[in-house]
Amino acid sequence: MNVLITGGAGFLGHKLCGALLRRGALSDAGGQLRPIQRIRLFDVVQIAPNDSRVESVVGDIANSDDVRAALGNDTDSIFHLAAVVSGEAEQDFDLGMRVNVDGTRALLEACRNLPHPPRVVFTSSLAVFGGPLPDPVPDEWPLTPQSSYGAQKAIGELLLNDMSRKGFIDGRALRLPTICVRPGKPNKAASSFLSSIIREPLNGVEAICPVEPGLRVWLLSPRRAIENLILAHELPATCFGHTRSVNVPGLSVSVGEMVQALRKIAGDAVAARVKFQRDETIERIVSSWPAAFTATLGRSLGMQADPDFASIIQAYIEDNR
Amino acid sequence: MNVLITGGAGFLGHKLCGALLRRGALSDAGGQLRPIQRIRLFDVVQIAPNDSRVESVVGDIANSDDVRAALGNDTDSIFHLAAVVSGEAEQDFDLGMRVNVDGTRALLEACRNLPHPPRVVFTSSLAVFGGPLPDPVPDEWPLTPQSSYGAQKAIGELLLNDMSRKGFIDGRALRLPTICVRPGKPNKAASSFLSSIIREPLNGVEAICPVEPGLRVWLLSPRRAIENLILAHELPATCFGHTRSVNVPGLSVSVGEMVQALRKIAGDAVAARVKFQRDETIERIVSSWPAAFTATLGRSLGMQADPDFASIIQAYIEDNR
Repeated sequence: MNVLITGGAGFLGHKLCGALLRRGALSDAGGQLRPIQRIRLFDVVQIAPNDSRVESVVGDIANSDDVRAALGNDTDSIFHLAAVVSGEAEQDFDLGMRVNVDGTRALLEACRNLPHPPRVVFTSSLAVFGGPLPDPVPDEWPLTPQSSYGAQKAIGELLLNDMSRKGFIDGRALRLPTICVRPGKPNKAASSFLSSIIREPLNGVEAICPVEPGLRVWLLSPRRAIENLILAHELPATCFGHTRSVNVPGLSVSVGEMVQALRKIAGDAVAARVKFQRDETIERIVSSWPAAFTATLGRSLGMQADPDFASIIQAYIEDNR
Repeated sequence: MNVLITGGAGFLGHKLCGALLRRGALSDAGGQLRPIQRIRLFDVVQIAPNDSRVESVVGDIANSDDVRAALGNDTDSIFHLAAVVSGEAEQDFDLGMRVNVDGTRALLEACRNLPHPPRVVFTSSLAVFGGPLPDPVPDEWPLTPQSSYGAQKAIGELLLNDMSRKGFIDGRALRLPTICVRPGKPNKAASSFLSSIIREPLNGVEAICPVEPGLRVWLLSPRRAIENLILAHELPATCFGHTRSVNVPGLSVSVGEMVQALRKIAGDAVAARVKFQRDETIERIVSSWPAAFTATLGRSLGMQADPDFASIIQAYIEDNR
């Protein structure tokens, strides 16, 4: 199996690559488990592979030539993670359109040149939802995104679904909850603070929480995200009906409860490093996202959420300390 | 008011132009009724204007230069009707993407160069829906189109909604029922037969009905379609909330009932000219569309359906004999 990971230099791409290398095999189009021979990490920056099966390919996801070169003529499976994140796509509409729409389209179009339709796992987002929402959001609910990022991911889903229906690809679109706790530095996602308010205090640094403690969010740990992405790849196409889009199960928790869990695990002094200071732009975007889903299809396919927020913090500490 | 109609050489574009000329005025961005000074008909073919206010502009909707030239720097309002129809978009995926996606995007992007955000009325379609559907389809139901045309129209809606939210345009997307009875010749829409089975028998010609008589469809007469398009333009932006997409009210009727209405109006000999002969490709597409909607938002905005199918036939006879 030859695998392409777009956004391969990012946090999730790196973690996914490691998990695939440890796993060593993926199902082919016929459902047979076959060894992974190559993982190509496609991104705007070069990375140094630490396994002979890994290749780093530098390119622009919105450039068809770059994408075709990365795919070659022997790619079996694609994990399409490359994206401009929510805050940045809102600030720079054209950049978001270019990477999130043109990039996804260039990739899916290029798949039509492959000898066999590849399995394509696409990371969509809860941000495809917005406006007045039931709580929890059922599987049957329209996409009326209230951010450019959400609109662009929704367009990606429509492309993936139609091209799967046409038989050009065998796609699966996972609407991921907010991934938390992300290691490293804050990024330009509107949801970036949801990791910062746990990560920074544990590192002895203050963190600003730009929303009210009562705001509820829908979260998934990086570990579970990776498990669900691989599970989605392994499912036979017959598991899907009229749509390849899946609301991934998550944990519904308020920001106040997140800080409370941090207090229980790390103590008062650590939790006190979270300072509440509203930012209306961030609050408008994040509060437009659903706080909970039924995720009926996702659960029926075997996708799993984290049991509670304490275990999300514990997993972060185990993975990063 | 300077108006641009894309697809201006088509049947609906021509009819809309006539209705606007008779009306003589449209509301500006501030809601004030102002005289129509110019209607520019943009299409791939030249047409001969029969009114000094009308201009014909030939160009390619997917070509940004052509679109910018057609918009000029003084367009106040746009009716975006240009599209590759359902049957053709299914047969030629790339052509559908080019006209329905790239064309809509080129148009909306070009609007950002205008001095004021124009009102944009976009003809979407019931084909954005598909898969297992409740009957009637409520306003809150996800778009899981089962045709490339439907997917492309859904992408157009997402672009229009997000660019309206950003303030680049003031858009309104009308999910039109199947327009029936269309005059003239059959087109490449999968739904083309719904006009043929009325029009051809009235003209003394046999017509093939490629679906079972029991298949129910959601119809709107050309007259009502034009009225609803103009009404949508005239609504203030404050009528819309988190979405600019509206399910337009229609008439739910079975194909058998359509032929029965034809029999009542025109007699047995005319109705006998409809021959039932299944075509699985057409049946698959048309039966994936909803047969009825609640159209709650559309009705609350004042949009109207035809009272019954007999009146649709009568209107066709009045307009075309």
